[in-house]
Amino acid sequence: MPMKLDVREIERKPAIDLYQLVCELFPINRSQTGSGVRKTLSIIARHIDLEINEVRTGTSVFDWHVPMEWNIRHGSISTVGGKCLVDFASNNLHVLGYSRPVQGVFTRAELARHIHTLPDQPDLIPYRTGYYADDWGFCLPHNLWQTMNDDVYHVEIDSDISAGSLTFGECFVPGETPNEVLLSTHVCHPSLANDNLSGIAVMTALAMRQARQKRRLGYRFLFLPATIGAITWLARNEPVLANIKYGLVLTCLGDGGQFHYKQSRKAATIDRAVAHVLRHSSLRHEILPFAPYGYDERQFCSPAFDLPVGCLMRGVHGAFPEYHTSADNLDFVKPEALDQSYSVIETVLDLLDADCTYERVDGRCEPQLGRRDLYRTIAGQREAGGATQMDLLWLLNLADGDHSLLDMAVRADIPFARLESAARIALDAGLVHARSE
Amino acid sequence: MPMKLDVREIERKPAIDLYQLVCELFPINRSQTGSGVRKTLSIIARHIDLEINEVRTGTSVFDWHVPMEWNIRHGSISTVGGKCLVDFASNNLHVLGYSRPVQGVFTRAELARHIHTLPDQPDLIPYRTGYYADDWGFCLPHNLWQTMNDDVYHVEIDSDISAGSLTFGECFVPGETPNEVLLSTHVCHPSLANDNLSGIAVMTALAMRQARQKRRLGYRFLFLPATIGAITWLARNEPVLANIKYGLVLTCLGDGGQFHYKQSRKAATIDRAVAHVLRHSSLRHEILPFAPYGYDERQFCSPAFDLPVGCLMRGVHGAFPEYHTSADNLDFVKPEALDQSYSVIETVLDLLDADCTYERVDGRCEPQLGRRDLYRTIAGQREAGGATQMDLLWLLNLADGDHSLLDMAVRADIPFARLESAARIALDAGLVHARSE
Amino acid sequence: MPMKLDVREIERKPAIDLYQLVCELFPINRSQTGSGVRKTLSIIARHIDLEINEVRTGTSVFDWHVPMEWNIRHGSISTVGGKCLVDFASNNLHVLGYSRPVQGVFTRAELARHIHTLPDQPDLIPYRTGYYADDWGFCLPHNLWQTMNDDVYHVEIDSDISAGSLTFGECFVPGETPNEVLLSTHVCHPSLANDNLSGIAVMTALAMRQARQKRRLGYRFLFLPATIGAITWLARNEPVLANIKYGLVLTCLGDGGQFHYKQSRKAATIDRAVAHVLRHSSLRHEILPFAPYGYDERQFCSPAFDLPVGCLMRGVHGAFPEYHTSADNLDFVKPEALDQSYSVIETVLDLLDADCTYERVDGRCEPQLGRRDLYRTIAGQREAGGATQMDLLWLLNLADGDHSLLDMAVRADIPFARLESAARIALDAGLVHARSE
Repeated sequence: MPMKLDVREIERKPAIDLYQLVCELFPINRSQTGSGVRKTLSIIARHIDLEINEVRTGTSVFDWHVPMEWNIRHGSISTVGGKCLVDFASNNLHVLGYSRPVQGVFTRAELARHIHTLPDQPDLIPYRTGYYADDWGFCLPHNLWQTMNDDVYHVEIDSDISAGSLTFGECFVPGETPNEVLLSTHVCHPSLANDNLSGIAVMTALAMRQARQKRRLGYRFLFLPATIGAITWLARNEPVLANIKYGLVLTCLGDGGQFHYKQSRKAATIDRAVAHVLRHSSLRHEILPFAPYGYDERQFCSPAFDLPVGCLMRGVHGAFPEYHTSADNLDFVKPEALDQSYSVIETVLDLLDADCTYERVDGRCEPQLGRRDLYRTIAGQREAGGATQMDLLWLLNLADGDHSLLDMAVRADIPFARLESAARIALDAGLVHARSE
Repeated sequence: MPMKLDVREIERKPAIDLYQLVCELFPINRSQTGSGVRKTLSIIARHIDLEINEVRTGTSVFDWHVPMEWNIRHGSISTVGGKCLVDFASNNLHVLGYSRPVQGVFTRAELARHIHTLPDQPDLIPYRTGYYADDWGFCLPHNLWQTMNDDVYHVEIDSDISAGSLTFGECFVPGETPNEVLLSTHVCHPSLANDNLSGIAVMTALAMRQARQKRRLGYRFLFLPATIGAITWLARNEPVLANIKYGLVLTCLGDGGQFHYKQSRKAATIDRAVAHVLRHSSLRHEILPFAPYGYDERQFCSPAFDLPVGCLMRGVHGAFPEYHTSADNLDFVKPEALDQSYSVIETVLDLLDADCTYERVDGRCEPQLGRRDLYRTIAGQREAGGATQMDLLWLLNLADGDHSLLDMAVRADIPFARLESAARIALDAGLVHARSE
Repeated sequence: MPMKLDVREIERKPAIDLYQLVCELFPINRSQTGSGVRKTLSIIARHIDLEINEVRTGTSVFDWHVPMEWNIRHGSISTVGGKCLVDFASNNLHVLGYSRPVQGVFTRAELARHIHTLPDQPDLIPYRTGYYADDWGFCLPHNLWQTMNDDVYHVEIDSDISAGSLTFGECFVPGETPNEVLLSTHVCHPSLANDNLSGIAVMTALAMRQARQKRRLGYRFLFLPATIGAITWLARNEPVLANIKYGLVLTCLGDGGQFHYKQSRKAATIDRAVAHVLRHSSLRHEILPFAPYGYDERQFCSPAFDLPVGCLMRGVHGAFPEYHTSADNLDFVKPEALDQSYSVIETVLDLLDADCTYERVDGRCEPQLGRRDLYRTIAGQREAGGATQMDLLWLLNLADGDHSLLDMAVRADIPFARLESAARIALDAGLVHARSE
């Protein structure tokens, strides 16, 4: 029996240049709401079938309301002589997110109350927001601020905070069953490359791939402003939630550091799947327990939903020095790190899609492999990803209708894809049948 | 919102001087029965509302009978010349417990059969009893015995073993619910300070405190002669047992050694509670598995009862050199060790009393903390024992009606009192409600 | 109360000389089928009441058929000058198992395709079979083959493969209950001493012993050709399987290496029993998880049966250098290793037979041991295997009708036999009763 080539053994490469997409999205000023998110989603929509949703300011979403929309055209600090020292146009991190408009001349002391710097990283611009704060402010390198010793400065922020809408994107690829995988990434940060253009780019490529092929599960890709976007989506999609069997929040996937997988609130299959894939990769990684702080898994795992949603990242929020600073730029993100992250997640999704339960047609004793030419064929001679005879024996022994392929792979400590190959061999030989759920 | 002062954050100090109570009780000769126990209980009763029970000799209690009452007035060994060498009046350990009366002149060889010494600790008097043995005897330092080389000695024990009663004390502080905490300590040892005047003193102060305040649980404090006292109490109180949700046997709490907590027979909440409190203290401690040897947990955890009763001690029976010798005296027990033990147990009791289950009023997504002024208030600025923002997030995430506060504290690895503060904040904000059992 | 002598404390010695039996069986040429198996079983039948079964060639057994019977009278390679170089008569490993008859002169190159050697162990003859292969071949030392440089050789194998039957032996010792222990060993290997005359000899002695005494459980001893024999037995005995509560496959028990116990597919009592016995022995051992490769546990643990059958061995298949070579001979197997293996398994069987559940007659508090003379008698003074007072306290505490003796022994970490002694003491004192299943 010739070994069929397994699509899963094809090198997993994203269909687009991830780094290039990060570069394209980098200059845009994003926030919870506003034109930057719309522009970002319109670029993503060139690659995937993205439904763009607008939810009006003031709409009630659980305990929250959709906020006013913020847009900004200009922000600067200049000397009274007219020399521009700090300019939103040169880096959108310079203006505190959700700053209200302001124009005028302020003493240094007055201005100081609106200045955010990082004394310990004096050359970097911090990223700060004033959501729900009715404030304005500037973020600048501490070293620059130290040199600004004039008595007064001219300040101008040309922004508006007004009724509008919150924008988010959703791409749903239906599967053969109603069961779904939820993937979510945040789109509300301005020019920060790892956090979270990396997540956006990787998720775009994942959505492209899932749309291209027939799949057992449905795949729901959400591009959301963090917190309020997730809350808004959940408030509008409660009937869908029962279908979500697995989920991942994706973020910070472009730095070169080790992988971190944060488990879902409850012990869920997604946790075992990601841990299994990372364990059988050569990649350094760490598994973190659930904690109610981080990204939108906070909302997906809130007690009334308790969805099986974990979070995959490389750098962990707050734990890498570039986090929420101007150093999280296009130099910090590496093309090969993006591709590697893509590959890991594609492997996880393929695993979930293929994770069936098999049952021996007759489970009494081993079948006679020799007369099916399955004894010699596979003993010792395995192509990459193909099944060894031992893999086939595991499959035939654990195909009891209770063990899923992932259960088998974990118990046998064998990469999932090899058990999957073994399952196909056994299926073709009529030794097992898939058990429908 | 101003942080309410938490009674639990008040320094936990016993209402009486524990060491002074130990000193007061030290000279009394106690045994399973007799006037010493009565005198001890009458001193305790000055501090707490103690019901003193007398159960008549011969009363059937399960497989046992209440024994004869033993009282002793005098015991000595003298030379025939009248020089007193060993005198009960100078140390009540000198006479074997339950010695029957004897008077006469004995050869050294005859006497030797009634002499107990510790050759390895030759300066110490051992503590020995002859319960149910119909014997008499003396305990003395091995070095003294070695110098006693006369041919004959005059021996006198003026005691009586006669029908009377077994005496025990009980103090019940009712709570708002029928659920109870059982606390038990043994009162049958003569002048041994750590074993068990330390337990008696600490438990007296705990009873004083519980009586002073309104509590959810009832608290039942038992001052019992070991073994027969516990058996007698159990035989007379079977209907009460179903209410006992947690229990602790307290003993040897005055030495300066590390804490030892011996778990109950079944995995019980009390075990998790004590382990949690010790873990989040700075105190050295060790958790020991249940074994059917030790103190009255043997009876409480007998198979037909299997009550959730553990045992908290510092020095472990038989494992410290002063154990059951005259070196377990007022020098061996330290005032600060007594106070520290009190504080640990009070913390455990407060935890048990506060260990409610909470449920989010609406568990869908996180509530908006900002508009309740709960975001800034608590971030990073925590008073001793107050909740951090992270504590509040844990509380809000795990308030699913299934996790008790202790469950949350163990999962989040956060001191219980901080989650309790978080629960009060959330309760005050109308975000959670307590779930009645 | 005098301590009764426990049969389990009698030195566990096999009733026959195990090594002598191995020697007697060694010269016989065994295979899956044929006269060698019959001769082997007839020798075993001198010691035990062995039912010898013949199942006709072609009989359908699950996915398999009983194969043709193979018998061989002669096999040799000679020079054309008539000098015999390789002779079946000198070592039956020389002929590939199931070789079809052949006679003629072959060029060295033609012959080479039928020659099996071990280049890394050049002085040893490998053991190889060609089941289901329609082939013939010779196995010889690599060094010998290297010296065979003639152009042609005369080859002769006088064998026949023809309709006949598969032979296996079964000895069933009924017990007082329908519950059974299955013991199985393979009988299909020619002159290999450890693999598996050691298993055959040990199992024969075990069957002798079980037949000699009254037992609670039934004991079923199977002497089977590997794989096809186990499949055949299972196919003919499905109604029996529900009675099998414990099982062991026995093999490779004569080498001096450490014990290896491979767990059953499911977590079963047999696994805990063997681990307990090995843990409380002084023997080096290792516990291996189940894997679907090895001996006939593969069939017993196939998914539709999933019997609680583990495998006890010393050397592990494929992991010792003598494995499946002519070095697995009478020098490799040690008399004392055989006896030690026997002793371990007898201890396990005694444990299983004695593993009852006890319940206190009255489980409220401890019973008064003193008045039953059980307090002084046993404290500190224990004969080998007798119960200490602590053992008795464990027994009395855990005799709740739920803990089996093995459960108790594992929890208390006390050798099973001591708890068993404690149980007898408690039974005799009327403190517990055995709970029927």
